[in-house]
Amino acid sequence: MTRTIVASATREIVIGFDQPFCVIGERINPTGRKKLAAEMIEGNFETVIKDALEQVAAGATMLDVNAGVTAVNPNETEPPLLVRTLEIVQGLVDVPLSIDSSVTAAIEAGLRVAKGRPLVNSVTGEEEKLEAILPLCKKYDVPVVAISNDETGISMDPDVRFAVAKKIVERAADYGIKSHDIVVDPLVMPIGALGSAGQQVFALLRRLREELKVNTTCGLSNISFGLPHRHGINAGFIPMVIGAGMTSAIMNPCRPQEMEAVRAANVLNGTDPNCTNWIMTYRDHKPAEGGHVVAAAAPAAGGGRRGGRAARAGAAARAE
Amino acid sequence: MTRTIVASATREIVIGFDQPFCVIGERINPTGRKKLAAEMIEGNFETVIKDALEQVAAGATMLDVNAGVTAVNPNETEPPLLVRTLEIVQGLVDVPLSIDSSVTAAIEAGLRVAKGRPLVNSVTGEEEKLEAILPLCKKYDVPVVAISNDETGISMDPDVRFAVAKKIVERAADYGIKSHDIVVDPLVMPIGALGSAGQQVFALLRRLREELKVNTTCGLSNISFGLPHRHGINAGFIPMVIGAGMTSAIMNPCRPQEMEAVRAANVLNGTDPNCTNWIMTYRDHKPAEGGHVVAAAAPAAGGGRRGGRAARAGAAARAE
Repeated sequence: MTRTIVASATREIVIGFDQPFCVIGERINPTGRKKLAAEMIEGNFETVIKDALEQVAAGATMLDVNAGVTAVNPNETEPPLLVRTLEIVQGLVDVPLSIDSSVTAAIEAGLRVAKGRPLVNSVTGEEEKLEAILPLCKKYDVPVVAISNDETGISMDPDVRFAVAKKIVERAADYGIKSHDIVVDPLVMPIGALGSAGQQVFALLRRLREELKVNTTCGLSNISFGLPHRHGINAGFIPMVIGAGMTSAIMNPCRPQEMEAVRAANVLNGTDPNCTNWIMTYRDHKPAEGGHVVAAAAPAAGGGRRGGRAARAGAAARAE
Repeated sequence: MTRTIVASATREIVIGFDQPFCVIGERINPTGRKKLAAEMIEGNFETVIKDALEQVAAGATMLDVNAGVTAVNPNETEPPLLVRTLEIVQGLVDVPLSIDSSVTAAIEAGLRVAKGRPLVNSVTGEEEKLEAILPLCKKYDVPVVAISNDETGISMDPDVRFAVAKKIVERAADYGIKSHDIVVDPLVMPIGALGSAGQQVFALLRRLREELKVNTTCGLSNISFGLPHRHGINAGFIPMVIGAGMTSAIMNPCRPQEMEAVRAANVLNGTDPNCTNWIMTYRDHKPAEGGHVVAAAAPAAGGGRRGGRAARAGAAARAE
């Protein structure tokens, strides 16, 4: 069984097919958040602290930490800022962290200070990236997110994306990194732009699980880009990717609808034993709309003789 | 491609892998609804009429019609009551109907008056049922729901349930009924009682689709029986069964959370071309909670060169 182990100083988490879905909180990331970027440049970490606490309180399994505040001189500015951000976050919460940067020097600086066993986010299939990132992952014995694009960009052909993922897994093996330490991101396209984006990713996830036997992740909300009511699309996408074998996602845990979908999919996927987490979370849930409970027939779980209508009795115990 | 055609007098619907999920409205069913049963016995069809109109307005693709008001003398009471109910419903709405009864005489009486091409609900793997229902389906050239239990009851072993489904498909073939006119119900157990119920049904659905190539259905809300916040479990279950290949379900279309899950899964499954139905339904959707839209980066759908962070730009266009 594929097990990717990540850890903070005090807490170990397993990412795996038989584990609850790993929610990697995406909020600590100044990309597209001008106010946060400005704060971080000024050395103001109030929003970082708030985002860290809120995401963990909302149920994040891990936190992604990105300090990419500027495209100007990132090789100089990003390493110290990422180090400072990581130190603040790991001093505050006890979940494992993901060190997120496109700057190799920042990844390395982060690895030097991160406690436990962080996840590196990310390597791609580009030669330059492979040669820069994989030795670091080996040196620090940490798992890495492998994004399935390369020098030619992001292929619209899922077979090519699978081949890139396979190449990264093989190259990692050359460096002595086991496939259970590669978490493949098959890349999720916006369904509003590419109608087959869902089917592509479901098929890719099955292949990655069955053929490469690797854990997987994605930037989840990308699927709903450009559509109205994105949370509804995201909340439908989560059970589908979990059903297809995805084991983690970089997402916003502060969205109740998405987190409810994660919890429901864990129940249905058999990774919330006895539905304990579901029941603890929703035992006092009040329906948003009116309705009443019917006197329900026993569910059709017994082994007795049952004909058409009787076999349906469980279905008749509907949630009105 | 497997196509199950159902029709009312004026409207034809295809159930199939490449079609929007077929929502069979479950409400017109006195099982577990004492007030409705009492009304129907009195010849009062106000609730039936209300349920028919509301379900179609809520987006039901078809309506299930059941008149099983009593376990006493159903062979005499149920046929005329089912006929009357079907006539009222088909005079009111133009969606195809499902004739739901465990009484063969009621099914036959219903088939005599139903317009178009109704679905028969249901046959099981029991000899008596097979011999009673399959000739009727052949005679009236209608599709039928095949529930995967037999004389020995409902097996907890999904392989046995698959074998029962296969037997029904084969027996139907002996009667000259094509497999595309068999809609298999693999039987959904309550996940609160059987932790593997989800995984069982997902595996069964894949086999039914890949090996028997049949359309499938289930009494959807059975999965959440006994749990708090059932709508949340149901709404997570819908995208998972659709992802696993299920093509219809008997469910309550008047539940917004469940119907949103159906619509999202259609988008993600590629059966809502250009997301038209989603956009029309949710274009004016107001988020339930506070939040603001960030200045979003373009989604990562292009083919350009993208490194780690840049490749994540689409994900950064998160739905805040």
